[in-house]
Parts: sequence; C-alpha cells; structure tokens
Amino acid sequence: MRFATYRSGSKVGVAVASEEGALRGLLHDEPGFPGPLSRLIAEGPAALRAAGASLARGRALDRSTIEWLPPLPAPGKIVCVGLNYVDHSLESGFVPPAYPTIFVRFSSSLIGHGAPIRRPAASVQLDYEGEMVAVIGKAGRHIARTQALDHVAGYSIFNDASIRDFQTKSPQWTVGKNFDATGPFGPVMVTADELPAGGKGLHIQTRLNGQVVQDASTSDMIFDVAALISILSEAITLWPGDIIVSGTPSGVGMARKPPLFMKHGDVCEVEIEGIGTLRNPVADEIGAAVAEPVAANA
Amino acid sequence: MRFATYRSGSKVGVAVASEEGALRGLLHDEPGFPGPLSRLIAEGPAALRAAGASLARGRALDRSTIEWLPPLPAPGKIVCVGLNYVDHSLESGFVPPAYPTIFVRFSSSLIGHGAPIRRPAASVQLDYEGEMVAVIGKAGRHIARTQALDHVAGYSIFNDASIRDFQTKSPQWTVGKNFDATGPFGPVMVTADELPAGGKGLHIQTRLNGQVVQDASTSDMIFDVAALISILSEAITLWPGDIIVSGTPSGVGMARKPPLFMKHGDVCEVEIEGIGTLRNPVADEIGAAVAEPVAANA
Repeated sequence: MRFATYRSGSKVGVAVASEEGALRGLLHDEPGFPGPLSRLIAEGPAALRAAGASLARGRALDRSTIEWLPPLPAPGKIVCVGLNYVDHSLESGFVPPAYPTIFVRFSSSLIGHGAPIRRPAASVQLDYEGEMVAVIGKAGRHIARTQALDHVAGYSIFNDASIRDFQTKSPQWTVGKNFDATGPFGPVMVTADELPAGGKGLHIQTRLNGQVVQDASTSDMIFDVAALISILSEAITLWPGDIIVSGTPSGVGMARKPPLFMKHGDVCEVEIEGIGTLRNPVADEIGAAVAEPVAANA
Repeated sequence: MRFATYRSGSKVGVAVASEEGALRGLLHDEPGFPGPLSRLIAEGPAALRAAGASLARGRALDRSTIEWLPPLPAPGKIVCVGLNYVDHSLESGFVPPAYPTIFVRFSSSLIGHGAPIRRPAASVQLDYEGEMVAVIGKAGRHIARTQALDHVAGYSIFNDASIRDFQTKSPQWTVGKNFDATGPFGPVMVTADELPAGGKGLHIQTRLNGQVVQDASTSDMIFDVAALISILSEAITLWPGDIIVSGTPSGVGMARKPPLFMKHGDVCEVEIEGIGTLRNPVADEIGAAVAEPVAANA
C-alpha cells in the first residue's frame, strides 16, 4: 500500500494513493480517521493494512485542493547516510568508507511533494541529492543483519538538498544539511511488501528541469538498508517512524565542471522505480519566513 | 524558577525545585497539572511563571520514589556545538574555528539526573563532556544577535558523553555522540531571568569520582549563546523547546596522557553555578536493552 500525509486548510489527514496518484483519505477530525501514519506504523503491519483498506473505501480527494506533506512530517530521527554509493564517494574526493558516514536532519528542514525547495538568502550553492528512504516500523537495538529488514515498514523518496558552502564551513555538515525547506520527502511511503527486499535493485534517477543528472540502482549502495540498520542499532535504539535516508549516487551539482546549482524557477524530480516521483520547484527565500511545525497529530 | 520533569511509576509529571532540590509537582493525570514543560515553554514566560507559582503551592514530592527525567525528554532539536572553548579546541588538535561546529543528538540518547550513563558493549572509550544548555523559548529565523537572548527560556546542564572511537570512525561524529543513555540532561531548567544574560560568567566544573577534570567559565565560549542562536537561525528555524548544547571546556579524558575513560561504577558530576549539579553513575551495558521513548505528553 501507498500512504500519504496531506493538509487541507489547517487540517492534516492521512490517505492511500493509487500508483497513478489518485488519493483517498480522511482529515484528523473526520469520522473514521485511523490515526496519523506515525501511529499506524507503530501499531504494526496489521494496523497499517487495516487502516489502508479502510481509507481505500473512503472519499476521493481533489488533489488540486490539498497540500502534500512528508509522509512523516516529524520523524523521531532523520538518520542520513553520506558517501554511500561508490561512485559518489569518489566524486566527492573520499575513499569509499569502511563505516557509514552518518549525519542528521531536523524535521524543520522537511517539505512535502510539490512544495518549493527554498534557496536561502545566504548562499547560491543549493545542490540536489536523490535518495531512497527506509522507514523503521519496529523498535530495536542490536539488530542482526539477517533480521534487519523485519524492522522496515516501507520506503520513500528524499531530495537531500544541500547548501554546499555551509556544509563545509566546519568539520560537521549539519548546517549545510538543515536549511529550512531543503528536505523534500515523499510523495508516499510504499509498504515494504510491495518492493524487493531492502528496496534493492530499484532504478533511481534525479532530473533537474527534465535533464537526467543522477541515474543509478539502489543496489549500488556500499551499505545496504539491512547493513545500515544493523550497524546503527549497535549504538542507537531505532523506533517506529524513524527514517534512514540512505545516501545519493554520483552526479551531484557540486562535482560537475562547472558546478551545477539549483536556482529560482528550476524543477527537481527524484524518481525511484516502484515508489514514485518526488517533484519540487525551487524558489528563492523571500523575507524572514519561519518554518511552521506540523501539528503533533501528524 | 527551576523546572523539572519526573516519572513516578509509569506516569510523567512536572515539578518546581528549590535551590536545595526539594520538589513540588503534579503528574499528568492529577488535577491542576499545568501541562508538560515543553508546552509551558511554548506558551511563553507568563504561562511558565503561572505554572511555576501553581506548582510551588502543590504537593511536596518524595525524591526517593521518583525518577528524574530530562527537563525536556524529547526536544524537537538537540543542537550540539563542538570545539566551542578555545582551550578544548586546542587540546583536540583543531584550530579555533571561524564558524561553529554543529552536530546533533537524538532524544534516544538522553537520560535524566541520577540515571546511569551506559558504557556500551561496543567500546571502552566513554568520555565525559560537561556543557551548559540553552533552551529556546520563542520561535525565530534570522534572529539578530542583539535580539537572540529574548529567544531563550532558560538554561540547564548536559553531559555530552562520547564514544570516542565511534566518533571518529567516519568524517561525521554522529554515532559516537548518540549511543543510547549517553546524554545526561538536567536536573532542572532554570529560567533565564534567574541567571546572567546569556548564562555568561558561570563557573562550570566536571568531576569524575570527585576529582575535578574540567573547570572553566561559561564566558570562555568562542561562540556565546547569542552568537549561536543568531548564526544557527540564519539557516534553521528555531522552535520553543529546542535545545542548544553549547560545547565543553578542556580536560576531556581523550586528551589526557594516558587517556581517562569512564567505567562501570564511576560517578560523573557536572556542576554549573546557579543551575545545579547533574550527577550520574556509569554502568556497563547488559544485554540488549531497548531505550524506551517517554510518553508524548512529556
């Protein structure tokens, strides 16, 4: 099943999507609302399936009147993996690593499908990074690699848009990875049962204004989803609703000669086979907008 | 005022503390419960004062029957600052930075005052780092340095206990800073009106088994609290309840010859003048415990 989170006016809802993108859903104050996706995931696969079946019999949504939110607008953890495809690792000047490079996003950086990626006033070095997301479905610590995929509820798409000059202002990348409205996530979470184990072997492609800029297979990861879960959980308890943003293949704008950065009016798409296409325009920051948190019931 | 969050049985409550540590508080299901500290902070200084006054007239708690939780068990952001004291920056082999070094903790790493810091099965390199915390009270983006302290609700204490070998397994420190139960935070949040502006000029001292291992003034920060808020908010919207863990002075165990790491049975204390003492024993990890999230109403 394919789950989405959306906003209509000031209300947040949960929906199921067809592969063609038709949505059926309910707002949080409508009768039959099954709960936010984060709670459905925490309740386990049976609850998720039941909610999906119930939503699928529900009301069709008019996509012109809703705003897509990230499937999980405020994940407990947003664990990001750097340098996780051999060719991107090389283009960035690093030796392919023996241990995954882990950095973190805050949920204040997230936006949904269709929302503008904001190029900040502070920089013109706004770069794209198409990535696959694994959504944790079951808590665990010290998870064996052979059991790791039992802890995945589903998969999604991320554009880990990065402000390159801020990413390298200090030894840690945090600020360059956390500008407001630079983390498109969605449009949907596809449950794990609909995809190959570990989300392996899926074609992943990033396009900027229609031009293919990244083109790879999710099988090219150095640390696959099972390995990431196992390695992370040696240190950190993973909780349902945590997400792992699993790294980007080669082709980023920074590594091109000349560099290719995103600018106002551009459109960036990340497509992953079997999951969908995450499409976002790019818009310059205007004024001092404050990122608004999504209500806790999302 | 001095606010604490605590657990009694399976219930979470909020309390006010006297300077001597006497607590008066209410559990979330008791009449008059004013709301979790995160919500009181978001409602602003007047709500916080009113809740504090009301709790101060409430029931005295028996400290032998309660468990201290972090004042904010699940902050929206845990923004940590590395290399923010000149002398610690030098002992770590870095040139004092021109831009703050920002890394991130997950709330799964947090523990309260008195709870054991867990030395993981994976490493013996468990190091202490005493730090002052600034708690954000008011949302903002592009906050001018001159206005920044208006965005601080209060101050607290953190022990940014670090697994040094994991911190340097990759270019990013994330894993070494996020082992379960390595982030003591508390015991209380002291409201900003009770401390010098920016928490400046406070004596900060870390003791391991009673021996002074770090001893400095919060005035020795390279980027003070106002600067950190202003610089971070150039990129990131800060929300009420976000915390900034502002960096550690010199004296960490890793930089000693021979290195001094914490082990089972040790007791580590971080004391900051005017805030209090955060005291935690150290215990080896046993089995495959999973860190439990604190209920959302905390």
